[in-house]
Amino acid sequence: MLSKAILKYVNSLQVKKYRNQHQAFVVEGAKSVLELLQSNFELQHLFLTEDFLREHGNKLGKGIRYELVTEQELTKAGTFSSNNAGLAVARIPELRYLKFQPTDFAIALDDIRDPGNLGTIIRIADWYGISTIVCSETCADFYNPKTIAATMGSFTRVKAYYLDLATWLTELPEATPVYGASLDGDNLHRMQLLPKGVVVMGNEANGIRPSVEAHVNRLIKIPAFGKAESLNVATATAIIIDNFMRNASL
Amino acid sequence: MLSKAILKYVNSLQVKKYRNQHQAFVVEGAKSVLELLQSNFELQHLFLTEDFLREHGNKLGKGIRYELVTEQELTKAGTFSSNNAGLAVARIPELRYLKFQPTDFAIALDDIRDPGNLGTIIRIADWYGISTIVCSETCADFYNPKTIAATMGSFTRVKAYYLDLATWLTELPEATPVYGASLDGDNLHRMQLLPKGVVVMGNEANGIRPSVEAHVNRLIKIPAFGKAESLNVATATAIIIDNFMRNASL
Repeated sequence: MLSKAILKYVNSLQVKKYRNQHQAFVVEGAKSVLELLQSNFELQHLFLTEDFLREHGNKLGKGIRYELVTEQELTKAGTFSSNNAGLAVARIPELRYLKFQPTDFAIALDDIRDPGNLGTIIRIADWYGISTIVCSETCADFYNPKTIAATMGSFTRVKAYYLDLATWLTELPEATPVYGASLDGDNLHRMQLLPKGVVVMGNEANGIRPSVEAHVNRLIKIPAFGKAESLNVATATAIIIDNFMRNASL
Repeated sequence: MLSKAILKYVNSLQVKKYRNQHQAFVVEGAKSVLELLQSNFELQHLFLTEDFLREHGNKLGKGIRYELVTEQELTKAGTFSSNNAGLAVARIPELRYLKFQPTDFAIALDDIRDPGNLGTIIRIADWYGISTIVCSETCADFYNPKTIAATMGSFTRVKAYYLDLATWLTELPEATPVYGASLDGDNLHRMQLLPKGVVVMGNEANGIRPSVEAHVNRLIKIPAFGKAESLNVATATAIIIDNFMRNASL
C-alpha cells in the first residue's frame, strides 16, 4: 500500500525541478524495471505487483526489498496509462567528467526537445554500442519519465552529458571529425564513413543552430528518393549511425 | 462556428467504424492540411483559423471553401491537445487493385499495431520513394488520426493495401525476393541488397508471425554492436530500407 507521502514524492519526480532537488527519478514498466535491477543504479524504492512477481520473481536478486502494490496504485503513482508490473525510484548517478578521445564515437544532440525522440535515440545508441551522448542544455531531460520509457532499458547503459555544445565542440582534440546532419549536406551513401568523432543532430523543426554548425567539419544528408520533406530526428539518427557502423561490421 | 452536428460528425471519425461508414477521415495541423490541399483527395470540410489564413492564405487554391473557426473549436473537434491551424475532413479514396510487378519494391507490415509506428513508416516510405505499403488486416488503420499525424503529410503519396498477408505473398510473381526482418536473420551490412521485392516487418513485440514468415525467402538482421535487445519497428524499417536504397544512389 502506497502512503500519501510516498505517492506525493513519486508524483513530484515527474517534474525536473524535483528530480534535481531529490537527485532521483522514476522507472516504470516490466522491461525497464528489470533492466534497472540488473544495473548499478542505486534503488530508493521498488513497487511491484503480484503479476510481476509471478512472472519475474525469480529474476530478483537475493535480499532485494520491494513493496507489494496494486495496478491501480502504480498507475496513480506513475505516468503510464496503465502499469500492471512495477515502478522504481532510483538515484541519479553522478557523471564522471567527459573525456573525449580522438578514437571515440559520440552522438551530440542540439536542442532535441521531445523526450520520446531523446529516449529513442538513446536506444539506438545502445544498439550500436555508443555509450556517450552529448546534449545541449536545451535538450529534453534524460530522466524525464517519457525519455526513460522510450529507451526501453537502454538508459542503464548510455550516459548523457548536458553542456554548452558549441563550447564543447571547440575543445575537442584537434582533427576530431565533427559531422552534422543537414538537408544541405553531402549524400552519406557516397562516403566511406568510420565510427570516429562526433555526429551532431539538430532540433526537430529547425535543425542544427548556426552557433553549433560553425564547428561542424562536414554536413551529411540521407539521400531522398521521394517527396517527404524530412524524417523524424530519431529515424534520421538511426539511419546515419547505421551508415557509420556498416564499415565496422564488414 | 462549428455546429453541434458537425462537431459530432468530426468527432465520430476518430473511430474506425464511423470512418468506414462515412468513408471519410480527419486531417489536423498546418503541415498535414497544406499537404492535403495540394493532393487529389476530395475535401468534405475545411476548418481554418485566422492564424492559418494569415500565414498560409496565399497557398489556398482559388475558390476553395472553408469555414473560419477558433483554436478552441478545432481542439474540441480533433485529437490534438492544441491546434491553432486547421482541420479538414476528406473522403477515403477507393484503391485500385494492387498489381505487384517483379521490379517493384514494397514494404509489408505484419500486425503493426501502433498508429504512430505505422505513420512513421509511411513517412519513411515516402522519403525513399516507396509508394506501396501492404498491411495485414490486423495492422493499425491508415486513416486513424494518430497515423495521419505521424505521416507528416506523406499519407497523400503512399498507399496502404490491407489484405491477408500470407495469401498475398504466395500469389506474388515467381522469383520475387521476399525479405523479412528478424533478430535471427543474416547481417544486412554484408549483403548486396537491391530495391526489388518485398520487405516484411513484424509486430512490435512478437515479430513476423510464423504463417507469414513461411513465405519469406531471406531473413535479414540489423547487426547489433551494443546491448539493446531490439529497435523500435519504425526505426528498424528506416535502417533496413536505407540499406536497400544505398545501392540505388551509388
